[in-house]
Amino acid sequence: MTPMNKQYRLAARPVGTPKDSDWSFTTEEIPTAAEGEVVVRVHYVSLDPAMRGWMNDAKSYIPPVGLGEVMRAGTVGEVIASKNPAFAVGDHVTGYHGVQQYGVSDGRDLVKVDPKLAPLESYLGGLGMPGLTAYFGLTDVGAVKEGDTVLVSGAAGAVGSMVGQIARIKGARAVGIAGGADKCRYVTEELGFDACVDYKADSFPQDLKAPLKSGVDVYFDNVGGDILDIALARLNRHARVVICGAISQYNNTTPVQGPANYLNLLVQHARMEGFVVFDYVRQYEEGTRQLATWYAEGKLKLKEHVDTGIENFPATFLKLFSGGNFGKLVLKVSED
Amino acid sequence: MTPMNKQYRLAARPVGTPKDSDWSFTTEEIPTAAEGEVVVRVHYVSLDPAMRGWMNDAKSYIPPVGLGEVMRAGTVGEVIASKNPAFAVGDHVTGYHGVQQYGVSDGRDLVKVDPKLAPLESYLGGLGMPGLTAYFGLTDVGAVKEGDTVLVSGAAGAVGSMVGQIARIKGARAVGIAGGADKCRYVTEELGFDACVDYKADSFPQDLKAPLKSGVDVYFDNVGGDILDIALARLNRHARVVICGAISQYNNTTPVQGPANYLNLLVQHARMEGFVVFDYVRQYEEGTRQLATWYAEGKLKLKEHVDTGIENFPATFLKLFSGGNFGKLVLKVSED
Repeated sequence: MTPMNKQYRLAARPVGTPKDSDWSFTTEEIPTAAEGEVVVRVHYVSLDPAMRGWMNDAKSYIPPVGLGEVMRAGTVGEVIASKNPAFAVGDHVTGYHGVQQYGVSDGRDLVKVDPKLAPLESYLGGLGMPGLTAYFGLTDVGAVKEGDTVLVSGAAGAVGSMVGQIARIKGARAVGIAGGADKCRYVTEELGFDACVDYKADSFPQDLKAPLKSGVDVYFDNVGGDILDIALARLNRHARVVICGAISQYNNTTPVQGPANYLNLLVQHARMEGFVVFDYVRQYEEGTRQLATWYAEGKLKLKEHVDTGIENFPATFLKLFSGGNFGKLVLKVSED
Repeated sequence: MTPMNKQYRLAARPVGTPKDSDWSFTTEEIPTAAEGEVVVRVHYVSLDPAMRGWMNDAKSYIPPVGLGEVMRAGTVGEVIASKNPAFAVGDHVTGYHGVQQYGVSDGRDLVKVDPKLAPLESYLGGLGMPGLTAYFGLTDVGAVKEGDTVLVSGAAGAVGSMVGQIARIKGARAVGIAGGADKCRYVTEELGFDACVDYKADSFPQDLKAPLKSGVDVYFDNVGGDILDIALARLNRHARVVICGAISQYNNTTPVQGPANYLNLLVQHARMEGFVVFDYVRQYEEGTRQLATWYAEGKLKLKEHVDTGIENFPATFLKLFSGGNFGKLVLKVSED
């Protein structure tokens, strides 16, 4: 049987949490390369909270995914055909081929990666966009410095896990917030955070009191909602709040919950600043080199949560919102 | 009859809008100066939105006013007795003598001012704290630059009126938001803003569309609430939101309304930063000199709304929240 290209396309704009009927599963022939193009066999698809935003018909930093289009997603795979002199068959590349098994590209969005240096799926995680998001968010937007206390929500997640580790490398204290005792144990025992607090525990947010007794210098927010307000209440003078995401709000059918404690910015002469990693595209190479160096020096631990089978995409995607993943969530879509 | 010192003291912590019963009116003998002290006869008391915050029993950048204490307020007056070599009888000084007719000070909080250069009450307005708030907020926190579009709420108020004028001096466009056609006319025709939009009009916020067609580079927020959200929706890339106050929220008995559109900070890589003018105490002299220079060059127009009679303090104070004042609100408390 000829291999085919299985795909997930956006069938409807979700209201709240995406349902199965918001997707259509299609099968096409494998694309071919025109002059200047390459065909990539996708091994892993990256699942990221930002994808939920791309499903809405709203103006944002990039256009929404159109109805009927293959769902946009970061990918890592292998070149299987090339009419572009910059890429050879067998090269491994990251790109944005979306939720499908084969993609075609003119090469401009592809970055070659070395599968001998780190597992292929790491290039979607700690050594990819989530790692770069943590790196630029914490060092540039958050302006972390030695002796700071850095608080990060989603601490066991793809971005948060890197934020705390980079904070420690920079000489700061790292305090995480994560859901559940297992994740918290992972964050402190494996990733080396100074503390981690379980937001699902009855004793939350009181549990934050001890690890934050010297206040918060940088809060790296991946979740929004009540936890953002709790962090705002604990800011030190001249603190920086890095707005990276708001996963607690992405499936809202009611308006986004604004941070009622934002006036603490005034009292503490603090700032809240947002960013998306695409703002740093010209520094990706520098950032990736730094992360890879730390990884090679044994200073960073990476963890991926790998689900398998493109058919499982809708269910796997929902793990982002239920906290069902542990580590950077990726889906293996190639069939061996 | 011997003159006495009439005073307003905080009698109860207000719930929502302050009531008459939250104050007590007292009469005491005029204080005398101990060694190192001066006695100041207060001519004008400054009425500022921040005073509402000082009435709450809440941790903030300065301690709350204690129950039974003279209400804290900025003042300008004349030295009538001095046992401090730095001050002579007849000197005019600003200070924090509160809502009373006579105050005593060790001189550390006093700044000499020249009543020949500008009317005494200006030193509570455009040449005083509100002017310095506008100056440091716009130039330092807001980092205004030539060609920017600066949006400011409370544009006819003590701070807002200065923000727009300083923006123009710096080569930026100034767009104001104020309550009522009269205030808007004043803002454009007398203060020289490029545009002003009436938030009480039925056509608000649509009226903002034309003057903000090139977006907002700096939003200077004095009001919070819905207007903050409207401004957040119109930010340009790398915009700065200066959180100076939130007068729409100060009398709330419900929680503060957080800005639901704060996620636009992420999309636009923008920041929201708060400050209080006390953060700049070491630069007051520099700032005051700059403002006085611009005033002398005819580049700044100042306007005070002067009510008369210390007995009218509770009613005059409420004008801050009803928009009943037009220009910097001061109360003349000296009796001639």
